Amino acid sequence: MPPFAFRVTARDGATRARAGVLQTPHGPVQTPLFMPVGTRGTVKGLAPRDLNEAGAQIVLANAYHLSLRPGAEQLAAFGGLHQFMGWSGPLLTDSGGFQLFSLATPDRRNGSQGSLVKVTDDGAWFTSPIDGSRQHIGPERSMEIQQAIGADIIMAFDECSRNDDDEAVAARSMERTHAWLLRCRDRWREQEAAKRGVAPQALFGIVQGGNSRALRERSAAFVAALGLPGVAIGGESIGYSRPMTASILDWVAPLLPDDRPHYAMGIGEPEDFFAVVRRGVDMFDSVLPTRMARNGTLLTSQGRLRLPSSRYADDQTAPDPHCRCYTCRTASRAYLRYLFKAEELLAPYLATLHNVSFCLDLMRQMRQAISDGRFPSFEQSFLARYREQATV
Amino acid sequence: MPPFAFRVTARDGATRARAGVLQTPHGPVQTPLFMPVGTRGTVKGLAPRDLNEAGAQIVLANAYHLSLRPGAEQLAAFGGLHQFMGWSGPLLTDSGGFQLFSLATPDRRNGSQGSLVKVTDDGAWFTSPIDGSRQHIGPERSMEIQQAIGADIIMAFDECSRNDDDEAVAARSMERTHAWLLRCRDRWREQEAAKRGVAPQALFGIVQGGNSRALRERSAAFVAALGLPGVAIGGESIGYSRPMTASILDWVAPLLPDDRPHYAMGIGEPEDFFAVVRRGVDMFDSVLPTRMARNGTLLTSQGRLRLPSSRYADDQTAPDPHCRCYTCRTASRAYLRYLFKAEELLAPYLATLHNVSFCLDLMRQMRQAISDGRFPSFEQSFLARYREQATV
Repeated sequence: MPPFAFRVTARDGATRARAGVLQTPHGPVQTPLFMPVGTRGTVKGLAPRDLNEAGAQIVLANAYHLSLRPGAEQLAAFGGLHQFMGWSGPLLTDSGGFQLFSLATPDRRNGSQGSLVKVTDDGAWFTSPIDGSRQHIGPERSMEIQQAIGADIIMAFDECSRNDDDEAVAARSMERTHAWLLRCRDRWREQEAAKRGVAPQALFGIVQGGNSRALRERSAAFVAALGLPGVAIGGESIGYSRPMTASILDWVAPLLPDDRPHYAMGIGEPEDFFAVVRRGVDMFDSVLPTRMARNGTLLTSQGRLRLPSSRYADDQTAPDPHCRCYTCRTASRAYLRYLFKAEELLAPYLATLHNVSFCLDLMRQMRQAISDGRFPSFEQSFLARYREQATV
Repeated sequence: MPPFAFRVTARDGATRARAGVLQTPHGPVQTPLFMPVGTRGTVKGLAPRDLNEAGAQIVLANAYHLSLRPGAEQLAAFGGLHQFMGWSGPLLTDSGGFQLFSLATPDRRNGSQGSLVKVTDDGAWFTSPIDGSRQHIGPERSMEIQQAIGADIIMAFDECSRNDDDEAVAARSMERTHAWLLRCRDRWREQEAAKRGVAPQALFGIVQGGNSRALRERSAAFVAALGLPGVAIGGESIGYSRPMTASILDWVAPLLPDDRPHYAMGIGEPEDFFAVVRRGVDMFDSVLPTRMARNGTLLTSQGRLRLPSSRYADDQTAPDPHCRCYTCRTASRAYLRYLFKAEELLAPYLATLHNVSFCLDLMRQMRQAISDGRFPSFEQSFLARYREQATV
């Protein structure tokens, strides 16, 4: 089988949901899947064996962050991120477009002026927050960085549109993203052709176009036509606005190549897992489950559980009685709450292990439901129970 | 076998070092042993399964801290700390005398006035740093708290002498400690006699007497005469001053009951492990290995390794190539250093797992050396290598 062959093994009759297998040089992954995020080469607090235990099939890292520290060259000297972080499964690197353009754009919510990054048609110029050095990442450099990191799947360098971009701004971002995608593809092809004894990498293109149906359709068609190993749907709106996420996926789904994996960037709410999978998405990621864990919020089969709440002070039950993760097998809600109150290191560890396990187990169940032809009923029963308990 | 039977299984011919087995209601422990410290019911960052993997036989917790949060009554409602923290092995609780008298005494080093705690012959009155409530711990209350916590071994409530106490001050602390020990013993006996279907607990007395030979000998004789299940040697000097620790142990060793375990309170440097074991100590504890880990200092077979040092930036070797812990099997010095620089949660976890594993493995080797009749040569070869590499 070729290194990035993607095979759909089951399709839901009522929705676009599908189950499949994607081959990578570090082993196959079953789709649809959630990718835990290890932005800087570590999934906050979890060791590689914890990720294996939780059922992680692939881990996402961030080329922008890793290029600043420890640096692309140091990672190359180690033989790549797999070796450096001790993770032998598949890896995917995001290019860092999202991070760079978050810094570049004035942000009304936090008052930042966006002055940290200058963006032109040749990429982004910015100051390293680590050592103050001047840095540049453009499409070609992004491919070089991601080659040094050595992830199985690498992402095109894109200009991430914001949820509040008007159509003209979104159109300019999209055009730039398309132009950069061609440059990324050319550099990636050169890199792949020059490789000797090194694992191949798969480049995924990214659909942009903001919240405009016309732009999204144009972008989907453009990316699909390139015949890359996979297609991602990006932009701040994805995962940020639930109705807009659904609309964008509804617009682009019919235009995406059926024989390639579809990746929705930034989906971390269990309710959204269903919303994107039923629209034909095969893979997605988000920092939300791990970030919520560090703040003391657990995802459970009955909804969110806010550990700092005093209602759990004497609660001897497992965080999620239906979960079989190490945390739920060994710690009570009261003990976890206590650990958070006492600001003990074990608190974010146990909470993160649970949230990641929960998301991955949910995806396992979802794949099974698709294979068994009962995705809609599984969705209905999960969401009925998940919404049962209000956020506390 | 009675619940706290202690049997010496091997003795070194040249020193007082001895190997043995101490029975507890939660299983036997092999001595000499190092006890990892889980002050607040968690060994900083390590889950119970990590402690098992590292070879922890018994974990130490602190009654003072646990009485403030989550509280003795909450722990009792859970059936004790074993249940609460999910640790099924033996536990030992320190009474908190050391913590209280650190707060009570003016400290020239940090300028504190010692006003937080008022101490009389009836114990210590203080304000909870958690909720500002007024609290009292005396000998009887300390026994009640430690019964609620449910550790296998509980410690007498003592007045911890400071390294700079003059003889008169040390004598007063010692007399108070002795008077309290009788009250602790009486309350402990009442508690034990009243128990139905609950595991028994062993009370250890504590030898005080500051840095005075006469006082230390008097205290050792007093505590030994009570015939308690174990005897501890306390005071700030123990583990604080290396020569004074050796002197105190040399003074008291001949006076301690040979058929009871000897516990030196606050020994965390590998070099000190040998110094106390060769003086007949069977058990000891310290926060040092876990605290150093969180600060990025690893204990290795070649000495201390300061991870933040730039000399490890590209070092692909294991933290300690002779160590078989998970950290040393999977992470390089460069990756660990990177995690510390990036202030990633995984850094203190991996470092703590290593330091605890290292100390426990050293004790395992030490027990074997005593049993094999080669303790002095093992000590010599370990220390020669340990000192080889300067602290960096």
